[in-house]
Amino acid sequence: MARRLTRVVTTPAAARLPHEWSHPFISLLSDWGARDPSAAICRSVVMGIAPEALIVDITHEVEKYNIGHGALMLWCALPFMPIGAHMAVIDPGVGTARRPIAIETARGDYLIGPDNGLLLPGAQRLGGVVRAHLIENAQYRLPVVTSTFHGRDLFAPAAAHLALGVPLESIGPEIDSAELIDIDWPPVVVRPAELETTVIYRDTFGNLKLAGLTADLLDALEGIEHGDSVSVRLGSGKSTRRVDMAWAPTFGEVELGGHLLYEDSYGRLCIAQNQGNAAESLGISEGDLVRVRRPASAGEEAQATE
Amino acid sequence: MARRLTRVVTTPAAARLPHEWSHPFISLLSDWGARDPSAAICRSVVMGIAPEALIVDITHEVEKYNIGHGALMLWCALPFMPIGAHMAVIDPGVGTARRPIAIETARGDYLIGPDNGLLLPGAQRLGGVVRAHLIENAQYRLPVVTSTFHGRDLFAPAAAHLALGVPLESIGPEIDSAELIDIDWPPVVVRPAELETTVIYRDTFGNLKLAGLTADLLDALEGIEHGDSVSVRLGSGKSTRRVDMAWAPTFGEVELGGHLLYEDSYGRLCIAQNQGNAAESLGISEGDLVRVRRPASAGEEAQATE
Amino acid sequence: MARRLTRVVTTPAAARLPHEWSHPFISLLSDWGARDPSAAICRSVVMGIAPEALIVDITHEVEKYNIGHGALMLWCALPFMPIGAHMAVIDPGVGTARRPIAIETARGDYLIGPDNGLLLPGAQRLGGVVRAHLIENAQYRLPVVTSTFHGRDLFAPAAAHLALGVPLESIGPEIDSAELIDIDWPPVVVRPAELETTVIYRDTFGNLKLAGLTADLLDALEGIEHGDSVSVRLGSGKSTRRVDMAWAPTFGEVELGGHLLYEDSYGRLCIAQNQGNAAESLGISEGDLVRVRRPASAGEEAQATE
Repeated sequence: MARRLTRVVTTPAAARLPHEWSHPFISLLSDWGARDPSAAICRSVVMGIAPEALIVDITHEVEKYNIGHGALMLWCALPFMPIGAHMAVIDPGVGTARRPIAIETARGDYLIGPDNGLLLPGAQRLGGVVRAHLIENAQYRLPVVTSTFHGRDLFAPAAAHLALGVPLESIGPEIDSAELIDIDWPPVVVRPAELETTVIYRDTFGNLKLAGLTADLLDALEGIEHGDSVSVRLGSGKSTRRVDMAWAPTFGEVELGGHLLYEDSYGRLCIAQNQGNAAESLGISEGDLVRVRRPASAGEEAQATE
Repeated sequence: MARRLTRVVTTPAAARLPHEWSHPFISLLSDWGARDPSAAICRSVVMGIAPEALIVDITHEVEKYNIGHGALMLWCALPFMPIGAHMAVIDPGVGTARRPIAIETARGDYLIGPDNGLLLPGAQRLGGVVRAHLIENAQYRLPVVTSTFHGRDLFAPAAAHLALGVPLESIGPEIDSAELIDIDWPPVVVRPAELETTVIYRDTFGNLKLAGLTADLLDALEGIEHGDSVSVRLGSGKSTRRVDMAWAPTFGEVELGGHLLYEDSYGRLCIAQNQGNAAESLGISEGDLVRVRRPASAGEEAQATE
Repeated sequence: MARRLTRVVTTPAAARLPHEWSHPFISLLSDWGARDPSAAICRSVVMGIAPEALIVDITHEVEKYNIGHGALMLWCALPFMPIGAHMAVIDPGVGTARRPIAIETARGDYLIGPDNGLLLPGAQRLGGVVRAHLIENAQYRLPVVTSTFHGRDLFAPAAAHLALGVPLESIGPEIDSAELIDIDWPPVVVRPAELETTVIYRDTFGNLKLAGLTADLLDALEGIEHGDSVSVRLGSGKSTRRVDMAWAPTFGEVELGGHLLYEDSYGRLCIAQNQGNAAESLGISEGDLVRVRRPASAGEEAQATE
């Protein structure tokens, strides 16, 4: 269901950023954590190869081993970044047979990391995969490649060299991009008068990002407008609860502590609490089912809760 | 009571930093958290507009929605930064009627963010507000401005353009700087032989920053010198406790685990524990009342505790 | 026992990084935490002095006051960094008689910080100490030096000036490098058929770094090869437990949730759990004793557990 994540290539700002410039741009993302020196080491390796590059750490605090979270972060961030080489490493299979790859996107970026699904949603968000190559050429790696830190030894050097203009075909042999491993996002079901979707991420504010996009909501609840109320069913089975909230453009449009369904700044549906933590106040977490309808009238309500 | 925070514009180093240079300087502060990609996205937007700029993230781990904490961080950091454009976003009212503003300070900096009090103490620390403008001109924003991420769509682009030399009046119309929203810091009461103040911040060491400055202590306890003992009453009502500690220049001047009152490196009074966590060992937290006297003699003590 | 940490100067990549360049390089490490603005202030002070420098924050999340952790981080990171000036500040004695120092290493780097052991393992990893000087010359400090923030007032300016080419002897008088304070790492005991060592660090994945290096294991268990099983005794006295695990090249070589002993990417022995947290699953923590043998046969086992 990666389709859901890539259905709307909104990228409102990206296309108009001043990309015609002389600065190589490199971004880094991982689950290594800010306490350990791994991320700084990769940044230093990049600087050693491409000292003129602009470098941004997207985040190194992705939940350990959570490939889906990392893929979502890339999906959010990449459209707002200059065209460049983006290294992402969430890599529980480091040192095993999983393939180290570099992908070229339609926008002109390179995405570098393990072939485990992490890179694909971001690539699709940048116009799709143009071609993919293995990272194999010893010339563009560190002299010694260890079994447990390919970020430092393999991916960071490849990103730096690609950002400097080394052709993708020099990095290693081309592979069939149709065989790249993709990610299974939870399905989004658009029914007449109901959108069924799933919580896929809880941000640091406790806002809950859903798999569904705004376009899905508009398909399901035709004619819905900001300020309308929606009835949100949370969870499944016996733990199902229903919360009415506004479909609102921003937090401050509802009362302090009130809940809202809103479109986040990337085109995705989210549930939030104004100046609160929706994940805590609603008791929901990643993977929970969310069904959105218009509020039931009294009669419909009796029927719906049977 | 913003006056308290700005009473002493110490800025010992700032005036002598080499500010006559060719590098635009941009700092970023928010409550977005390091796990989410928001801060990196803003940094990337800035880089897209001002690739030659030097960029510093002051912090993105300010307590969520805590405008006072953010204002204090700016008050501490800005004097030690090169003159530049400083974007700060703690913005529970994002997308509502609160005004997006850019302030010019007497030192020559621009402060960019929401008009909710966040920017004023820092501006006063840099010599005061010279003028303030709304951020309104579509030319200096991203093409699409969402309702929930003005940091990315509005503030970061404005900061980048201002750092590049775009005149403040091009960003939007001037507004009355006397009507900017200020912050209410807890009062500092200087009595003969007693300073009454409040804990306003607990740093990551557990050191407790007080609203009072060193100058306030010197006013209240005339002639006090490093090495003198002080009697500190913590809290109010039934939970009041008294702890004697030294007024000391630095942590290592008291025994391991001992408490001290000291002037922090910004001119502010703080309570700490040598190689310990004062907030935990003393059981005090933000908002607690702190009264500092000279230690009572036996006779005075009996009276004081009635 | 600092010898243990420096026995193998592997530095596989460092020697071949392109170090002949025009960019001053400066790294920063501390225990100040990412929430407070201290690290950003130091970075800004560096930028004010050396705006062309490349700057990397190794980490500012070292456990408070933990000099050993900081020293280990430097030992890991420095070989992969360009030659430069490396400021490290874990400094419970700030403002007391402990000496502020700058060390020149054989590789050509400068290490700047307090003389409390923090800098020595990193210096030895870069070929050893060539000479050491006090940081004393007022010309290379901020105009006002406070008692509690030498990172900002003393160390960051010294690092920036050294990176720009100020000669070490201009910073302050030379001191006897034989009298620099060193660190006591836990001993590593190589016995016939047993390696006895200690957990010295738990990384953010819950992987446990040991004081022993791969070379020590190879000395103790002659002929051991990847895929062989080892018997690991954890703890001492009544809380001793024994866990069999593979000596494996990487995480994915054992089953999901399985434990392994492996060589980390710096040449150090580590215990991990594939896609899990070894510290939690094994219930061991820093300072715990670890003894590694070949698995006992049934007969030997009876003897060993008497």
